[in-house]
Amino acid sequence: MTLPDAFLDIARRVNNWGRWGPDDEIGTLNLITDEVVRAAAATVRSGRRVPLAVPLRQDGVQTGMIPGRVNPLRTMVALNLEMFGPGTIATSDDVVTLGLQAGTHWDGLTHVSHSGRIYNGRPADTVTAHSGAEFSGIEKVSSLVSRGVLLDVAAALGVDRLPGGHAVTPEDLDAAEELAGTKVRAGDIVLVRTGQIQAYLGGDKQAYAYPSPGLSIRTPEWFHARDVAAVANDTLTFEIFPPEVEDLWLPVHGLDLVEMGMLQGQNWNLEGLAAACAEAGRREFWLDATPEPFVGGAGAPVAPVAVL
Amino acid sequence: MTLPDAFLDIARRVNNWGRWGPDDEIGTLNLITDEVVRAAAATVRSGRRVPLAVPLRQDGVQTGMIPGRVNPLRTMVALNLEMFGPGTIATSDDVVTLGLQAGTHWDGLTHVSHSGRIYNGRPADTVTAHSGAEFSGIEKVSSLVSRGVLLDVAAALGVDRLPGGHAVTPEDLDAAEELAGTKVRAGDIVLVRTGQIQAYLGGDKQAYAYPSPGLSIRTPEWFHARDVAAVANDTLTFEIFPPEVEDLWLPVHGLDLVEMGMLQGQNWNLEGLAAACAEAGRREFWLDATPEPFVGGAGAPVAPVAVL
Amino acid sequence: MTLPDAFLDIARRVNNWGRWGPDDEIGTLNLITDEVVRAAAATVRSGRRVPLAVPLRQDGVQTGMIPGRVNPLRTMVALNLEMFGPGTIATSDDVVTLGLQAGTHWDGLTHVSHSGRIYNGRPADTVTAHSGAEFSGIEKVSSLVSRGVLLDVAAALGVDRLPGGHAVTPEDLDAAEELAGTKVRAGDIVLVRTGQIQAYLGGDKQAYAYPSPGLSIRTPEWFHARDVAAVANDTLTFEIFPPEVEDLWLPVHGLDLVEMGMLQGQNWNLEGLAAACAEAGRREFWLDATPEPFVGGAGAPVAPVAVL
Amino acid sequence: MTLPDAFLDIARRVNNWGRWGPDDEIGTLNLITDEVVRAAAATVRSGRRVPLAVPLRQDGVQTGMIPGRVNPLRTMVALNLEMFGPGTIATSDDVVTLGLQAGTHWDGLTHVSHSGRIYNGRPADTVTAHSGAEFSGIEKVSSLVSRGVLLDVAAALGVDRLPGGHAVTPEDLDAAEELAGTKVRAGDIVLVRTGQIQAYLGGDKQAYAYPSPGLSIRTPEWFHARDVAAVANDTLTFEIFPPEVEDLWLPVHGLDLVEMGMLQGQNWNLEGLAAACAEAGRREFWLDATPEPFVGGAGAPVAPVAVL
Repeated sequence: MTLPDAFLDIARRVNNWGRWGPDDEIGTLNLITDEVVRAAAATVRSGRRVPLAVPLRQDGVQTGMIPGRVNPLRTMVALNLEMFGPGTIATSDDVVTLGLQAGTHWDGLTHVSHSGRIYNGRPADTVTAHSGAEFSGIEKVSSLVSRGVLLDVAAALGVDRLPGGHAVTPEDLDAAEELAGTKVRAGDIVLVRTGQIQAYLGGDKQAYAYPSPGLSIRTPEWFHARDVAAVANDTLTFEIFPPEVEDLWLPVHGLDLVEMGMLQGQNWNLEGLAAACAEAGRREFWLDATPEPFVGGAGAPVAPVAVL
Repeated sequence: MTLPDAFLDIARRVNNWGRWGPDDEIGTLNLITDEVVRAAAATVRSGRRVPLAVPLRQDGVQTGMIPGRVNPLRTMVALNLEMFGPGTIATSDDVVTLGLQAGTHWDGLTHVSHSGRIYNGRPADTVTAHSGAEFSGIEKVSSLVSRGVLLDVAAALGVDRLPGGHAVTPEDLDAAEELAGTKVRAGDIVLVRTGQIQAYLGGDKQAYAYPSPGLSIRTPEWFHARDVAAVANDTLTFEIFPPEVEDLWLPVHGLDLVEMGMLQGQNWNLEGLAAACAEAGRREFWLDATPEPFVGGAGAPVAPVAVL
Repeated sequence: MTLPDAFLDIARRVNNWGRWGPDDEIGTLNLITDEVVRAAAATVRSGRRVPLAVPLRQDGVQTGMIPGRVNPLRTMVALNLEMFGPGTIATSDDVVTLGLQAGTHWDGLTHVSHSGRIYNGRPADTVTAHSGAEFSGIEKVSSLVSRGVLLDVAAALGVDRLPGGHAVTPEDLDAAEELAGTKVRAGDIVLVRTGQIQAYLGGDKQAYAYPSPGLSIRTPEWFHARDVAAVANDTLTFEIFPPEVEDLWLPVHGLDLVEMGMLQGQNWNLEGLAAACAEAGRREFWLDATPEPFVGGAGAPVAPVAVL
Repeated sequence: MTLPDAFLDIARRVNNWGRWGPDDEIGTLNLITDEVVRAAAATVRSGRRVPLAVPLRQDGVQTGMIPGRVNPLRTMVALNLEMFGPGTIATSDDVVTLGLQAGTHWDGLTHVSHSGRIYNGRPADTVTAHSGAEFSGIEKVSSLVSRGVLLDVAAALGVDRLPGGHAVTPEDLDAAEELAGTKVRAGDIVLVRTGQIQAYLGGDKQAYAYPSPGLSIRTPEWFHARDVAAVANDTLTFEIFPPEVEDLWLPVHGLDLVEMGMLQGQNWNLEGLAAACAEAGRREFWLDATPEPFVGGAGAPVAPVAVL
């Protein structure tokens, strides 16, 4: 079996293999230049900070449907322990087990492969059980700071939350860009709001997981045309799920990560940001979203903060 | 047994309990106002980003001497898995177990207690085995962005790396502040460089761990006088270890975390930053250092990035 | 609030504190003498072995309702890894995270406490976050081999599986003992079959968990009168759940573990054993059920095997 | 590169592929018949039980040299937690992370592969990152009870502990069998004592790990000739390490596990058993050594108990 033309045609158009040389491991992050960062700093006006991470807890967003992607289990290994004797300073320490893609996270470029290949045409089997990703591991990201732009699709379409079956199209992104009042440009980190995370915040994890609105297979070309550095949203699956095209699973993952070499973010809480942006009357901001540098990681948790 | 006057006298002078009200859980982070953040943004000039985290790997900084503080063990739970059938997009996922204080991290305010109390006078037993910290858990930090100032003590004292027995004194901090060319002020995040992490980077974990240069018991007053928001350095123990005063263990932890309510950071790699600052001719910068929001955590990993 | 007389009266009657001296940490396991074991060996007639453990897998019996009691997550840390060079012998290794009480397990004597006490009257706070149980940790069991007797209550009552609301009473145990054709005696390990695990084996974890048939608050006296060494059954909660007496939660746990000092086993698959016993026409056998010796453990997984 | 004739010649002679049919997954465990078990039960004379597991603790036998094979880290997820209200029965629960081969364990048949094959000629890639072993996972063992025979090589050679460089040869096994006073026969579990574990028990983990006495490449034929069911010993590496033949690493693993399909046990504490056997004047006994049934496991912890 091979992937259908519906996928392969777009793949050819958004492919970035070799664009930054045969040794490149970070893809579209190359688009974040010092100049881009300087311009991003200029978007800080009020100094208001908005955190975008969902708190990491055992009752996290995972429902158990994705095997092994376990919610965080944090426990104490020391608890007010007076290790130097009674009456001394006591210490508390904790340890955690979690799926790297369990909470608010970035998918690393090796999170998916297709036809035996990962980004930049490397063999998929360069990811191994014992070492993880030899190339393009999440630690290669090193830093991820740029201008953030909120594309509030829900607001642009006049709803609080997109319905489960809604595929976010290029036209939707156009409308949200219009609402944002700024043109998405090279090196931006784009945050696409669907409102779907309200289901999780409201206590219904199943409804959050499935069915989910999300990015259409047609969006990678939109991001590619604008040379976006990375895209995140407020869903578990990033792309519309179940998929638009029958039997074509995770096509957006394949296009964004493998072909373009562009990081995807999931489970970002964009509710507070949407409110802050609406209040401020602008949807561009400084965004710091550097993932934890797990060596060889196919992804990593991130605690993103927008500064308006 | 009770803590000696050498500790208690300073404790009284740096105590911030009640300063931000009886319900406060974040201590000196209150000092990071919108205005402080706006001013911090103005320090971004070149757009150069310098990551400060040590990569998270099994061969991390921990030597096994601190029970339970285990280095990260990351493994694959899916490896190019074609879960939707042969020839489809394949996924790779990973899971990790790690001590929250194992790598580059922030000590949360509940990381230590003394005399049965944590920050703001709350009972130490509000930290429990099953829930962690009810108050002042690391997730309460929410965001941590401010102006960063590098106090390069090693450089100020004309060495590459301070010797193991060196207690960093207020006088050392003065010298480093002089070198920095900027006054440390309210809301700053101060990074104190000793050069000690060179031992780890050079492959000698034991030498990195012990004996270690670090902050003197006299430094909390220095930070308190300037209303610093948080302090991090490039050692495993933060403070000088073994301690200056016989049988007085971890006094700086007790003063900074419990009395002042000020976060401490450890295992930060400041080598690249020192070089970048020297090159740029200035030691102030934008610093994003938001910890991962583990609910109830006594600390958390962080992937700090300085932007010059 | 204190525990009701319904509990305290029985507690007094089954209490074994001090019976084996003030230093004792294993309770009724003292009843397994060399003589008991010799007699147990004589029950081996056919040599047929019947495993009683539920396989340890991520889709295990836990539903997430008991916080932290996570199902096993086993992953590879080496996968056909030729660590000594190409073409050499390759190794595969795995690592696991699991709740010690997640699968087929023994509750250790410290699994519950009441009124600030654990078995033998020791303070409950001798169990700590960093060290676990100082006394009566599961590793103190050391070995657990004896005669096993199957009390097949479901069969004795003429059903395949007891209904969710069924409290197994002393009268039920009498009937099952009659069916067993042997008198329960000092040092025996008693296995009480309800049939409830059929729900899990049939794929319905929720129905397995709750509501559950289980041992009545009146059974500890029955076991105490016979000086049983340990009791296990085929349910998640061991005792009837929700409880018989309103607002009296886990009374059987309190009586068996704290008062008597008798281990309890849960999630044992007794279906194959019931069939084998019915076939063999006897319900006594050699039973090896030594828990994994986790130091300080409040419980531990066990892979019990009956030999008929 | 291919494996040398020194290996391949023996491989041909001890190969059991197909012996129990093409679908077999348990190899020499097939040799444990009901009759063997009945005879084993007859060896129980005194009823004395001797546990053979090393306690599972963070300060376990692993030194960190084998990546990912982490010592057990057990922590509390509930600590005297009155989850049903103040004054009710309180519960304590724990969770653990450990390498399945970290403590006293059995190597499963998929623990090693060579030339792309595991036991019974199956492709090595039937072991995967997400599912572990599709065939011959450790859970397939189901039960492991038989006659145990202690081959006390150290005692037979008149020493307390064999030196690090000692390869246990067939001649050594002959001498130990002579001392045992019983002939090793089909279906036996053989325990080979070197005394090496004294190093660990005495606190020197490094000396325990390396260099280690262990089984010679010539021993698989000895076990094969006698149709032994399984072999365990008191070392970290099972076979002599570093190896006898230059550049031929883990040959005994390759022969025992891949060719013969015979389980190997490591880190068994045979000191107490040696004393008990010497006292009893016989070295045969009932042995229960059923591994924890981790589905897909390349190995598993075991808490073996000998009954004399």
